[in-house]
Amino acid sequence: MDRTQTGKEAGPEEAAADSPDGATLVSPLAPPGGFPDIPPIAGVRFASAEAGVRYRGRLDVMLAHVEPGATVAGVFTRSATRSAPVLWCEDCLRAVASGAAGGGFAILVNSGNSNAFTGAVGRDAVSATVGATARALGVPENHVFTASTGVIGEPLPAERIVAKIDELAARLAPEGIADAARAIMTTDTYPKGTVRRVEIDGVPVTIAGIAKGSGMIAPDMATMLVFLFTDAAVAQPLLQSMVREAADRTFNCITVDGDTSTSDTLLMAATGHAQMTPVSDAADPRARIFATALEDAMRDLAHQVVRDGEGATKFVEITVTGARSDAEARKVGMAIANSPLVKTAFAGEDPNWGRIVMAVGKSGAHAERDRLSIRFGDILVAENGFVAPGYVEAEAAEYMKRSDLVVGVDLGIGEGKATVWTCDLTHRYIAINADYRS
Amino acid sequence: MDRTQTGKEAGPEEAAADSPDGATLVSPLAPPGGFPDIPPIAGVRFASAEAGVRYRGRLDVMLAHVEPGATVAGVFTRSATRSAPVLWCEDCLRAVASGAAGGGFAILVNSGNSNAFTGAVGRDAVSATVGATARALGVPENHVFTASTGVIGEPLPAERIVAKIDELAARLAPEGIADAARAIMTTDTYPKGTVRRVEIDGVPVTIAGIAKGSGMIAPDMATMLVFLFTDAAVAQPLLQSMVREAADRTFNCITVDGDTSTSDTLLMAATGHAQMTPVSDAADPRARIFATALEDAMRDLAHQVVRDGEGATKFVEITVTGARSDAEARKVGMAIANSPLVKTAFAGEDPNWGRIVMAVGKSGAHAERDRLSIRFGDILVAENGFVAPGYVEAEAAEYMKRSDLVVGVDLGIGEGKATVWTCDLTHRYIAINADYRS
Repeated sequence: MDRTQTGKEAGPEEAAADSPDGATLVSPLAPPGGFPDIPPIAGVRFASAEAGVRYRGRLDVMLAHVEPGATVAGVFTRSATRSAPVLWCEDCLRAVASGAAGGGFAILVNSGNSNAFTGAVGRDAVSATVGATARALGVPENHVFTASTGVIGEPLPAERIVAKIDELAARLAPEGIADAARAIMTTDTYPKGTVRRVEIDGVPVTIAGIAKGSGMIAPDMATMLVFLFTDAAVAQPLLQSMVREAADRTFNCITVDGDTSTSDTLLMAATGHAQMTPVSDAADPRARIFATALEDAMRDLAHQVVRDGEGATKFVEITVTGARSDAEARKVGMAIANSPLVKTAFAGEDPNWGRIVMAVGKSGAHAERDRLSIRFGDILVAENGFVAPGYVEAEAAEYMKRSDLVVGVDLGIGEGKATVWTCDLTHRYIAINADYRS
Repeated sequence: MDRTQTGKEAGPEEAAADSPDGATLVSPLAPPGGFPDIPPIAGVRFASAEAGVRYRGRLDVMLAHVEPGATVAGVFTRSATRSAPVLWCEDCLRAVASGAAGGGFAILVNSGNSNAFTGAVGRDAVSATVGATARALGVPENHVFTASTGVIGEPLPAERIVAKIDELAARLAPEGIADAARAIMTTDTYPKGTVRRVEIDGVPVTIAGIAKGSGMIAPDMATMLVFLFTDAAVAQPLLQSMVREAADRTFNCITVDGDTSTSDTLLMAATGHAQMTPVSDAADPRARIFATALEDAMRDLAHQVVRDGEGATKFVEITVTGARSDAEARKVGMAIANSPLVKTAFAGEDPNWGRIVMAVGKSGAHAERDRLSIRFGDILVAENGFVAPGYVEAEAAEYMKRSDLVVGVDLGIGEGKATVWTCDLTHRYIAINADYRS
């Protein structure tokens, strides 16, 4: 989860994204290449600033401006205790989807304070920051999306953000996405970005995205903020359905600890600056090209979030096949991915397949013990309701030492399948979340 | 969970119920009085033995015999990967419930091996041990209930148990319940027992029970074995419904890690030896007296199981009120009780109420942020969608240092209520489940 969302920091002078014991650690699973080289997306500009929302000396506010004519889509946490910014974004998206035209769009994001569970004061804070942004950029207020991530239950110091809006507006530039990725970090140990290029009608199109999140990650959008931009031209209803479907197969298939945040927000803007005829029909072959690249970009960001899971030392892909339906396969996958016993076994590099059997059994999905088979990588561990005849535990134990693991479960009763991703549960997760108090 | 269920032990010579690092620790939350003084229950006899199922030098098999005329009720894990003994017990209970008469009953239990995910070999093992018991005691085979707890996926060495059956049958005695409680332990740090006495029609009646379980504890009966005995006379259908309802409010309202075992079994026998007219009607006032005492006994055992949760240092009662229904209240309670973030906050003695808000939000139950209130003990923490005006964090932090905590959540929208119990999530849980390999 967001350590900043829960009042865990040592003090106001500490930079965020630090480990609780003071050392700035980068996850051992961080992508080796670092932050990708993301080119400008025509029609989108970024600026970031140090507003001192909770800490001094670090970027904590980012503003993105999207030129008029763009389409915007989004998905949000399903939590019943959604933050004030999430409720505001839902209103904006409804207005945008119903065809409100004219003016550009803005996305204003701060870290350090989630403005969640802050009652009427929280709504006032959104009004203040959104109003200032709308005035500075000349866009309608309900075209200003906003997201906040950080401590829950403390009033957002909106005035510190408002004081930076004019400066941010003046400094907007096409190149600022890498700083934006840093400004939205909380306990993240590295900034997360992705870029994909595809050709549509012979025209090169770019999809770029940034994300934050390193815990409280679970289906239904955990403490994650994800912002995607493309110069493709895609009609709003189609963009919304593509984003929703891709989110269900990517961000909603990852889990660090099964906990769900009050603030999760995924927004995508398509500027239409690429020289292509807009795509508006899902049956259009171009829609499939775009949707595939979009899902690929979103999967990359989702994996980066899992790899930065609090205390993670293993990245685990769990593939479930042979279920009665895709939904049941996902249910089995998430039961395995969220089981503390399975996750501690991964941490202990223990090929403890009995715990997989247990998790399948408790998932609530239809399963038949004597049809179940389990694989660690290519190693067949169990089949037909019993340990596999050729299984050698020492080989499986050797496999478990890898940092990237693949667990295959076949239920043997249908065609349903799903893939989910998780990390292990380690001492460091406990240390981050229990041992250090503000 | 059962450490013995997952192949975690250091070696075959090690005694069970030891900590993974060799020290025999008793949970800091163990009941101060130790195992209770349980008098004989007329009509029930016990014997325990060292069969060497997995370890030498410890009690690992117990046999209970219940005289003819008794009624038997039971509830079992709902796991889709139920063990062979659970499937057998379900068959027995169906036969008993449909009125099969004559002969006494037996309950045969071993620790060290759960006989789960063992295919046809597992069924054969049940046939062997049950058959030997039926012959030794002169009871029908389908009156011999059996339960196994321990490692998953290894063949049960049935012959070691069969070799002890005649000795067990010969040594049956009314006083053996304390040894029986020890024989069924796995990673439990102390034996669990309870006793309640009530008067029905002026006749003193006793309810006694034993349980094992220290992890993999969750709703739907996690790795728990529970055996209850009474001399009251209660008709089978009524006994079954009373046991089912009490289990739903006790054992199905506790969780250690949200994981569910393949082997959970609760059996209750009512011998009818007390000089009372049998109770058969739920509307009979005597039924309520008995059911209340039964639920009280089961709650006591359930609490003992939570207090022995792997690595637990805090016992936490979570009371949810004001929900749309009792079921939704329980859903909220279990979401809080199973949240790794909430449980690590308890471990860290951190009054981190933002995480409670998060868990309420993710529970899936209907909640309205601005009606939610949260209490730690008597301390009002949050209300009306915001931190409470008089809240002083230092006071809450002081409260969190207690070993027994009460969290109150009022949703403010209905009359539904539920109470659930859990423990904290500590380094020791990780150590038990990740750090030590066989």
